[in-house]
Amino acid sequence: MGNFRRVPVGIVGASGYGGVQLVRLLMEHPEVELVYLGGESSAGKSFGDLYPHLAHLVNLPIEAVDPEVMAHRCEVVFLSLPNGLACQIAPQLLEKGCKVLDLSADYRFSNLATYTSWYGQERSDRTAAATAVYGLPELYRDRISEAQLVGCPGCYPTASLLALSPLLKQGLIVPETAIIDAKSGTSGGGRQAKVNLLLAEADNSLAAYGVVRHRHTPEIEQICSELAGHEVTVQFTPHLIPMVRGILATVYATLRDPGLARDDLITIYNAFYRNSPWVKVCQSGVYPQTKWACGSNLCFIGVEVDPRTGRVIVMSAIDNLIKGQAGQAIQCMNLMLGWEETLGLPKLGFYP
Amino acid sequence: MGNFRRVPVGIVGASGYGGVQLVRLLMEHPEVELVYLGGESSAGKSFGDLYPHLAHLVNLPIEAVDPEVMAHRCEVVFLSLPNGLACQIAPQLLEKGCKVLDLSADYRFSNLATYTSWYGQERSDRTAAATAVYGLPELYRDRISEAQLVGCPGCYPTASLLALSPLLKQGLIVPETAIIDAKSGTSGGGRQAKVNLLLAEADNSLAAYGVVRHRHTPEIEQICSELAGHEVTVQFTPHLIPMVRGILATVYATLRDPGLARDDLITIYNAFYRNSPWVKVCQSGVYPQTKWACGSNLCFIGVEVDPRTGRVIVMSAIDNLIKGQAGQAIQCMNLMLGWEETLGLPKLGFYP
Amino acid sequence: MGNFRRVPVGIVGASGYGGVQLVRLLMEHPEVELVYLGGESSAGKSFGDLYPHLAHLVNLPIEAVDPEVMAHRCEVVFLSLPNGLACQIAPQLLEKGCKVLDLSADYRFSNLATYTSWYGQERSDRTAAATAVYGLPELYRDRISEAQLVGCPGCYPTASLLALSPLLKQGLIVPETAIIDAKSGTSGGGRQAKVNLLLAEADNSLAAYGVVRHRHTPEIEQICSELAGHEVTVQFTPHLIPMVRGILATVYATLRDPGLARDDLITIYNAFYRNSPWVKVCQSGVYPQTKWACGSNLCFIGVEVDPRTGRVIVMSAIDNLIKGQAGQAIQCMNLMLGWEETLGLPKLGFYP
Amino acid sequence: MGNFRRVPVGIVGASGYGGVQLVRLLMEHPEVELVYLGGESSAGKSFGDLYPHLAHLVNLPIEAVDPEVMAHRCEVVFLSLPNGLACQIAPQLLEKGCKVLDLSADYRFSNLATYTSWYGQERSDRTAAATAVYGLPELYRDRISEAQLVGCPGCYPTASLLALSPLLKQGLIVPETAIIDAKSGTSGGGRQAKVNLLLAEADNSLAAYGVVRHRHTPEIEQICSELAGHEVTVQFTPHLIPMVRGILATVYATLRDPGLARDDLITIYNAFYRNSPWVKVCQSGVYPQTKWACGSNLCFIGVEVDPRTGRVIVMSAIDNLIKGQAGQAIQCMNLMLGWEETLGLPKLGFYP
Repeated sequence: MGNFRRVPVGIVGASGYGGVQLVRLLMEHPEVELVYLGGESSAGKSFGDLYPHLAHLVNLPIEAVDPEVMAHRCEVVFLSLPNGLACQIAPQLLEKGCKVLDLSADYRFSNLATYTSWYGQERSDRTAAATAVYGLPELYRDRISEAQLVGCPGCYPTASLLALSPLLKQGLIVPETAIIDAKSGTSGGGRQAKVNLLLAEADNSLAAYGVVRHRHTPEIEQICSELAGHEVTVQFTPHLIPMVRGILATVYATLRDPGLARDDLITIYNAFYRNSPWVKVCQSGVYPQTKWACGSNLCFIGVEVDPRTGRVIVMSAIDNLIKGQAGQAIQCMNLMLGWEETLGLPKLGFYP
Repeated sequence: MGNFRRVPVGIVGASGYGGVQLVRLLMEHPEVELVYLGGESSAGKSFGDLYPHLAHLVNLPIEAVDPEVMAHRCEVVFLSLPNGLACQIAPQLLEKGCKVLDLSADYRFSNLATYTSWYGQERSDRTAAATAVYGLPELYRDRISEAQLVGCPGCYPTASLLALSPLLKQGLIVPETAIIDAKSGTSGGGRQAKVNLLLAEADNSLAAYGVVRHRHTPEIEQICSELAGHEVTVQFTPHLIPMVRGILATVYATLRDPGLARDDLITIYNAFYRNSPWVKVCQSGVYPQTKWACGSNLCFIGVEVDPRTGRVIVMSAIDNLIKGQAGQAIQCMNLMLGWEETLGLPKLGFYP
Repeated sequence: MGNFRRVPVGIVGASGYGGVQLVRLLMEHPEVELVYLGGESSAGKSFGDLYPHLAHLVNLPIEAVDPEVMAHRCEVVFLSLPNGLACQIAPQLLEKGCKVLDLSADYRFSNLATYTSWYGQERSDRTAAATAVYGLPELYRDRISEAQLVGCPGCYPTASLLALSPLLKQGLIVPETAIIDAKSGTSGGGRQAKVNLLLAEADNSLAAYGVVRHRHTPEIEQICSELAGHEVTVQFTPHLIPMVRGILATVYATLRDPGLARDDLITIYNAFYRNSPWVKVCQSGVYPQTKWACGSNLCFIGVEVDPRTGRVIVMSAIDNLIKGQAGQAIQCMNLMLGWEETLGLPKLGFYP
Repeated sequence: MGNFRRVPVGIVGASGYGGVQLVRLLMEHPEVELVYLGGESSAGKSFGDLYPHLAHLVNLPIEAVDPEVMAHRCEVVFLSLPNGLACQIAPQLLEKGCKVLDLSADYRFSNLATYTSWYGQERSDRTAAATAVYGLPELYRDRISEAQLVGCPGCYPTASLLALSPLLKQGLIVPETAIIDAKSGTSGGGRQAKVNLLLAEADNSLAAYGVVRHRHTPEIEQICSELAGHEVTVQFTPHLIPMVRGILATVYATLRDPGLARDDLITIYNAFYRNSPWVKVCQSGVYPQTKWACGSNLCFIGVEVDPRTGRVIVMSAIDNLIKGQAGQAIQCMNLMLGWEETLGLPKLGFYP
């Protein structure tokens, strides 16, 4: 293979669940080499201090965050940080020619006023923000291919939008009737010591949270509006489920044409996603289980119609840490570097 | 206490989860004595053979089902059997003067055609069915007090109807916009050896099932229609959650008056349930967790309004085996025997 | 009921899992009244702020800890605090005539040097410590009945000692061969926000911890030595199990008489515990499950003999928060106040 | 890569958890091609009927079991069947020149009398049995490389023997003091509908089973005896843990030389496994968690010494379905075909 050279990539914020998934997946990727790990609170430690079971495979140090150094060593940088930090680092990385994939909310919004209103933070990096592309390849494959900065979607928006997009794009539903009842494992809350995420609290229990005000709402609405061609408001309710990984979004909407049958819609979904290798539409009468998606970058979609109520019910299942986070970012990177969308990403999961 | 005499009660179908909860709760009840356990498949065994850890407390034999014998020994009989069996036993028990509480679907429907259409079974016990009362005390307290035969609600309808009733009764919502997204622990599937209920399959996974065709739908619609004063169709979607016990129903509906605020609705809910000791309406901004209800006969209700969409979101949490099954049956029995509704039922649960 | 008066009791440290179980169980106890809740970090809040789902049942304030006030209002005080705090409060309570039950390690050791060596803390309350009785009723029923101060056992020592005591007391095993392999749910770690107790970390995982140095070791050895009549060293290894509640101790020891059969030993166990209503010895060939004990104050014990190796294997299962903590403390209180040992304690648990 | 040809392999018994792991791992293996799936109960179905979420990746039919056909199409055959079936198929496959890896107990015993005594089955395939090699590469790497028939170890023996081997091989412990307290997730019970494996039964519970008589005992003893150079009897106790995957074996034994320190032993373990890429010995004071191993073919080993008791405690963690089953079989296949032991096997797992 002669003078083959892997693309050098770095991760800032490698200590959280998003970070450890990025490390795991990038280590398996045939065309990149992980050369840099950065972090604030963990700087000075090695990755193996944080995750002893990976010490034999990944022995990089966690370095203090220095965009200059990163840009010098990396062609691609993944930012996996709390909201409000990426926007302080990305502009410098872009200027130095890096390609940047941000996993936080910072570059998801085309309208910064929306960001400020929901995330309570003013922003000064308008230039960078203006060039950012929303990293959902199934909708924005072409734009991502040409982007230098990608704002990767949240886990809930990924599941929600993959369920809703064919309906909105084709004008099959009344957009304002869309209700997304979403359920997530607790790893979505990150590797943070919070009482409500303790096993003793969260196991064998179930509750909604962030009702009518979860920050993923405007992100979902932004893309729905773009697909519908007008401003769309949706109902989004997340729930915490006693499991580690996985999201199921159960989406309800009223069909414009109550005569549409389940199989018609399955045909439409299959057509919509025919070039999307990571989306699998279930056969008629089959509803996806999150376990099917766990460990893979796949999204499974099931479609049902209720002729009694005139509604379509769409269920989408993903692994919140892969298709909902790290895997999708790598899928975007693949596009940005001109590679196959599927390169280096897991498709077989880890059932059971 | 002189010539105090406890009321003799019996259970048919004591081997399942509903049965074992009835046994446990009736053993703790101060005014009844459990004198009879019946079953088909377990007849000849003792209760302790089925549940060794309860053998020291409950040493009754499981007897073959004989209505004559039951009626001779019991004043009250609980039927905890698969659908379609209670209707073959209840008429004889009633004739002999027993009070009967059926936990199956057999006596939940005022219109037997609905039963036949959803449960696929013709019925000949029209007289018994005509006298049956739907056993949801929060709605039908008075009728239950005078009933000889009570058809106890399903677990999902209990959670769903307690969430929806105040809204429908007061005409606050557009009934046909009601969507019930319900989530249940796997004990709702009973103590049956099914592959999909194995820990290795169901743990760390999540899926919808019975979408648009679950048999609890017509039961919910029957009561909603009665409350609304006209025929109501609802959307009901159950999900299997990786936990043992608990149901959360997340209910969505469009408000007739979009100006109604969350606190207005909480006031209305508190008023509606002011004489219902087993329903607790959460304070403003608090959403119920199923763990709060587990082990008790309580239903916790949280109410939220989305001024952006004009919808109300109501969340109700119960223990599916207590308020959703055995506890509610005993609550009904208390009413039928003229006792306090709370008598002998657990209110403190078993958190964590 | 005329001049009936319930005994006023108080709890210091009501916000943790031990505290909330004490509250729950004391609320159900027919002869006491919970009149005082104390705490440092939660002082000024009400109990319902900490546990919203119990607010309608327990509306006491959490008061700053003041022994004077406590002694004035309570006849019995439960101390449920981190190690090293009870010894600063108990002496004053005792002086004022209170009966005191401490759930920490402070009053478990007859030899304070052992305490200091394993807990790293010097102590000045030698008088109080000298009067304290170890609160394991199955072994020290009589002493507890006459005690004013009881040091309640740890959760692991309870399970371990109930398994080992008949063997040691009767000299049936070689004491130094005793190995205790113990497994606990994560609620044993308390309601503390620690990363290793997060559901995402602890679920679907399993590990030993504190190997060869867990602080419950000297406590187990102290009682084993007393039973054996000479100094005994045991091997104790705790494990963290992905479940909320329950402890299983699997105990191995070499029989002095390799001819002893399983059924001989079961007879001996039954005899040893014939006056202990909270211990249930399983029938031949039956091994206890922690679920059987959950929610009750029971300890289930299974006994097996391996004729190939000459070892006895004893398995004991308890609910770590009840028989392993709050329930056992109340069992001791019952004895201290001259009541039935079983009074007010749950015996039916909450299976499944 | 010109005329590169992948080695054709087949699986009999592809519908269980062992089978689905084999499918998953063989699909990812760079040098083999999965060309045949066989089964009895599932014959006529396709693999995608059993596992809908893998239908897009594996669309092979499940064929009736016919050794003639298999041998014609496959160079290597994996048998993943209930005990007692492989020995009816393997001889024919061997005769036709296939390499065979059996995952059942049929070819694990060098002494068929032991097999018959513990598995209750007479055997006629003495020739095949005599040539079978025990498939634990860390001990029998060379023999496996030259074998045509490998009897792959059970999941418990794998974890137990990797923990014990260095101690026995070097004569560091008194063999008859060895006690193995093992804990397994419920997937070890297979994909069978059994009441005790239901989530509602097994979750939040814990128990030992097969005490003093589990069938993995003689298998462990056979290898221990070989390592020790004389007949060894061990104590083996398995426990069912409320999790899907993973085994932790906690092994106790008395050191011959009580002066040996933990770090001495860690050095010895590292030396023993220096050529074993799938075994990782933890640093001093670190104990393995099963989650670390899950999804990978790794075994993590932690070592501790108790100077107070003179015992060594060794903890080993594996994924029961990978290193404990399918992964180990593929590791053996790699050796049999002259490939790197690590080829195509996952080393990064799927934490969290």
